[in-house]
Amino acid sequence: MPAPSRHRVVVVGSGFGGLFATKMLRRADCDVTVIDRTTHHLFQPLLYQVATGILSEGEIAPAMRDILRHQANAHVLLGEVTDIDLEARTVTSSVLERETVTPYDSLIVAAGARTSYFGNDDFARHAPGLKSIDDALELRGRIFGAFEMAELEPDPAERAAWMTFVVVGGGPTGVEMAGQIAELAHRTLTKNFRRIDPRDARIVLVDAAPQLLGSFGPRLGGKARGELERLGVEIHLGAMVSGVDAHGLDLDTDDPRLQRIEAVTKVWAAGVAGSPLGALLCERAGIQPGRGGRVPVEPDCTLPGHPEVYVVGDLMQHPDGLPGVAEVAMQSGMHSAIQIERRIAGDMTPRRFRYRSLGDLASISRYFAVGKWGRVEVWGFLGWVIWLVVHITFLTGFKNRVTALFHWIISFLGRARAERTITKQQIFARQALEELETLRVRDQYL
Amino acid sequence: MPAPSRHRVVVVGSGFGGLFATKMLRRADCDVTVIDRTTHHLFQPLLYQVATGILSEGEIAPAMRDILRHQANAHVLLGEVTDIDLEARTVTSSVLERETVTPYDSLIVAAGARTSYFGNDDFARHAPGLKSIDDALELRGRIFGAFEMAELEPDPAERAAWMTFVVVGGGPTGVEMAGQIAELAHRTLTKNFRRIDPRDARIVLVDAAPQLLGSFGPRLGGKARGELERLGVEIHLGAMVSGVDAHGLDLDTDDPRLQRIEAVTKVWAAGVAGSPLGALLCERAGIQPGRGGRVPVEPDCTLPGHPEVYVVGDLMQHPDGLPGVAEVAMQSGMHSAIQIERRIAGDMTPRRFRYRSLGDLASISRYFAVGKWGRVEVWGFLGWVIWLVVHITFLTGFKNRVTALFHWIISFLGRARAERTITKQQIFARQALEELETLRVRDQYL
Repeated sequence: MPAPSRHRVVVVGSGFGGLFATKMLRRADCDVTVIDRTTHHLFQPLLYQVATGILSEGEIAPAMRDILRHQANAHVLLGEVTDIDLEARTVTSSVLERETVTPYDSLIVAAGARTSYFGNDDFARHAPGLKSIDDALELRGRIFGAFEMAELEPDPAERAAWMTFVVVGGGPTGVEMAGQIAELAHRTLTKNFRRIDPRDARIVLVDAAPQLLGSFGPRLGGKARGELERLGVEIHLGAMVSGVDAHGLDLDTDDPRLQRIEAVTKVWAAGVAGSPLGALLCERAGIQPGRGGRVPVEPDCTLPGHPEVYVVGDLMQHPDGLPGVAEVAMQSGMHSAIQIERRIAGDMTPRRFRYRSLGDLASISRYFAVGKWGRVEVWGFLGWVIWLVVHITFLTGFKNRVTALFHWIISFLGRARAERTITKQQIFARQALEELETLRVRDQYL
Repeated sequence: MPAPSRHRVVVVGSGFGGLFATKMLRRADCDVTVIDRTTHHLFQPLLYQVATGILSEGEIAPAMRDILRHQANAHVLLGEVTDIDLEARTVTSSVLERETVTPYDSLIVAAGARTSYFGNDDFARHAPGLKSIDDALELRGRIFGAFEMAELEPDPAERAAWMTFVVVGGGPTGVEMAGQIAELAHRTLTKNFRRIDPRDARIVLVDAAPQLLGSFGPRLGGKARGELERLGVEIHLGAMVSGVDAHGLDLDTDDPRLQRIEAVTKVWAAGVAGSPLGALLCERAGIQPGRGGRVPVEPDCTLPGHPEVYVVGDLMQHPDGLPGVAEVAMQSGMHSAIQIERRIAGDMTPRRFRYRSLGDLASISRYFAVGKWGRVEVWGFLGWVIWLVVHITFLTGFKNRVTALFHWIISFLGRARAERTITKQQIFARQALEELETLRVRDQYL
C-alpha cells in the first residue's frame, strides 16, 4: 500500500498514451495506477492483421500487468471509468457492478478514440469498426465466414452478395483492410474451395474524400490507389455512405450503378470520435468539447484550469492540430509523465508539448507500403521493408516479435494465414449482447 | 461437379476421425464431402493450453479446407447436421437457416462427443466443459478474469471465492487443467499483481472415482497425484458433485469442510456423452443407443443393418470396448476409409477393426508427464519429453509446429504465456446466447 504522502498518479487507458506515460514514470517518486476496461495494451495499428488471420490476438494485445510486472510503482486496475471528479480528485471505475474510487494527485486521461458513425449508430451492427480485439475477431469471423456461406449458396445473386466486401474509409486502416482482403481472396484462399473461386470476390473501397490516404499527400495517395487496383480492389472516391443494412449499403453518388451495393460484409474505417470520457471531462471542467468529442487542451496537454490533469493521445485536441496516430499518443504520454515528474520535484512551469513526427507509414499489400518523412516520400518494396522494421521494433515483448515475424514470413513469403479460426463467440456475441440490451435485461451481465 | 457415377462419401465431423478418414481417401476413386459445424479441425488434447494462455486458437484449430486444399476429391461444407436419412441416403445440414441436402453412397459419422453433466444441464452455465475452441476461450476469460476480480475485491471472503478454482474430473483433461492453473498461479502471474498474491490461489481437483487417471492404473495415478500436490493442488477423490451455482459447488462427501466450496471459477471435465447425432442414428436404424448416447457398431465399425454407414471415434461403441481417445478416432477413421475403398473395388467382405494402442500420455506440469505403453510405465521428465515429441509430431501443419514449439519454450523454460487476451466475447457470449434462447428470440441468430 502506498504511503499517504507519496504522489499518486492515475492513468486512464492502456493504449500507447497510457503505456508510455506509465513506463516513463518508472523511476519517479510516485505511485501509478493504470485503469482500463480491458486487461491488455493494444497495438492498434496491427488490428487489421488480426481481422484478416495473420496475427493472433495475444501478439498485439499483451497483458498490461505482465508488461509492467517489474515496475514496482505501477498498479493495474480493471474497470470502465464511469466518473471523474475534478474537485475531489477521484476516478470512479466499475466492473461487474463493483465500483472502485481511486484518488489522484495527477491524472493522465489517455482513453483514446472509438469508431464514429457520424450519428448513424444503427450502422454499427452491420459494419463493425476496428478499434478493439473484439472488433477484429468479429470481423475475422465475418470475412472468413462470408466465403463459407458463398460456397454453400446456390443462388448467384446471393452468392455475389456474400463475396462482396465493402470497406468504408480511405485512411490507413481502410486501405490496409482492403489490401488484406484482396490478398486473402487472391492468395490465401486459393484451392480452399470447390464451388466458388475466391478470386471472384469483389472488394470495394469507398470514401467521401477525393483521394486515398489524405494525410500522405496526393502522390502517395495515387501510389496506394495504383497498388490496390493492381490487387483488384474497386475504388470509389467522393462517394458518401447514406445507408447500411444487413445486405448492403447505399451510396450518395451520381453513378446509378453504385447507388446500391449488395454486400453482406462491411467494414467501417471511416471515422473516429473521442471516448465518451472526453465529453465528461469537458462538462466537469466547464469547457466546450472540440471536434469529434475531443478535449481542447493547453499547449502543455493539460485540461484548461486543471494543471494536474493531462489529456493525451487521440482524445486530446492540441492547439498544434496533431494527427490521431500512435506516435502522438506515445510522445504526449511521455510529455505528461515528464511534466508530472517535474511538478513532483517542485517545478510548476508548464512546458509546451512539441510533437516530433517520425513519419507516417501504411502497408498496402505484401512488399508494398507507402511512407512519408517530411518531404521524403517512399513507396513499394523499400517502404515495406521500413514498415516491417518499424513494426517489429515497436511490438511489445520479445515473444510477440518472434512469432509475429514468423507469421509475417509465412503470410508474405508463403500464402498461409495461421489464425483463421471462426468461433461462435465472434459471430454471435455482438448481436446477442445488443439484443439483450434492447430487451433491457443486459444489466445482469455488464 | 462430380460425375453422377462416381462413389460419393460423406464424412460428418472434422475431428481426428473425420480428418484421418478423409485423408486416407485421397487416392480413392470417390468424391468426399466433409460436413462440420465449425470451419476447423480441432486438436482436442491441447484445448487446455488454449484455456490457460499458452497456445493461440489457430495453433490447434487450423482451417479444415486449408488442410485439404491439395486433396482435389475432398470438399468441405460448413453446417450442423440436422438429419440423416438412411433410406434415401442423404445428410441434411443447416447453417444460418440455409439447408443443404447431400446424398451419399457411403457415410462416415465422426461427430464425436460433447460434455455431459449427467442430467444436470443447468451446471453448464457455471462450469463450462472443454470440448470446443469457444469453451477454451471462455475458460481463458474466466480464469485470467478471476485474478483480475480478486485484485479489485476488498472483502476477504469474496476475494477467496475469486481465487478458488475447482476442476471437476480426474481424467487427463482435469489433471492437465488443474496442473496448468497451478503453474499460472505459481509461475506466470508472479509480480503481476499488487494487492493479491496469485500463489494464494486455491486449486481443487475433485472426482467421484477413488484414483486419478483411472485408465493409467494405480501407480501412474499416484505419481500424477504426487506431482499435483507438489504444485499445491488440493485433491479430493470419492467426492460426487451434487450442485453447481455461480458462487461455488456442493459435494456429496462426509467431510463437512468440503460439503460446500465457494469458488467462482469451475471447470467441468467429468464426463462426455456422444453427439446428439448418435441418438438420431440409433433411432433411424431401429437400435438401442449404447452408453452415454454412443452408437453400438458391428466389429467393422458399421451401423447394424447398414454396411454403408460407419460410426467412428468417440461416438462409436465398439464391441472391443475402446477408450475415447484421439488414436481410436484416427485409426477407426482410417479403417472405415480403407473399407470404403475396398467396397468401391467390389470387395464387400466386412473386416474387423482392431485398435493398436500407441500408448497413453498425460502431462501434469512442465517437465512432468505420465505415459503408459502396455505394461511399460514412465513418469516425470522422461514422460514429458515423450509427450513433447508426440504432440509436436501430431500437430497439424508446419507453421503450427513452429509457433507451438516456441510457445512451449517460453512457457516452460520461461514463465510467460503469450495468449492471455480476455475479450468481451469470451466473458459474455455464452450467457447472452443462453439468455436469448430462454427469451425465445434466438431463432433469428442461429
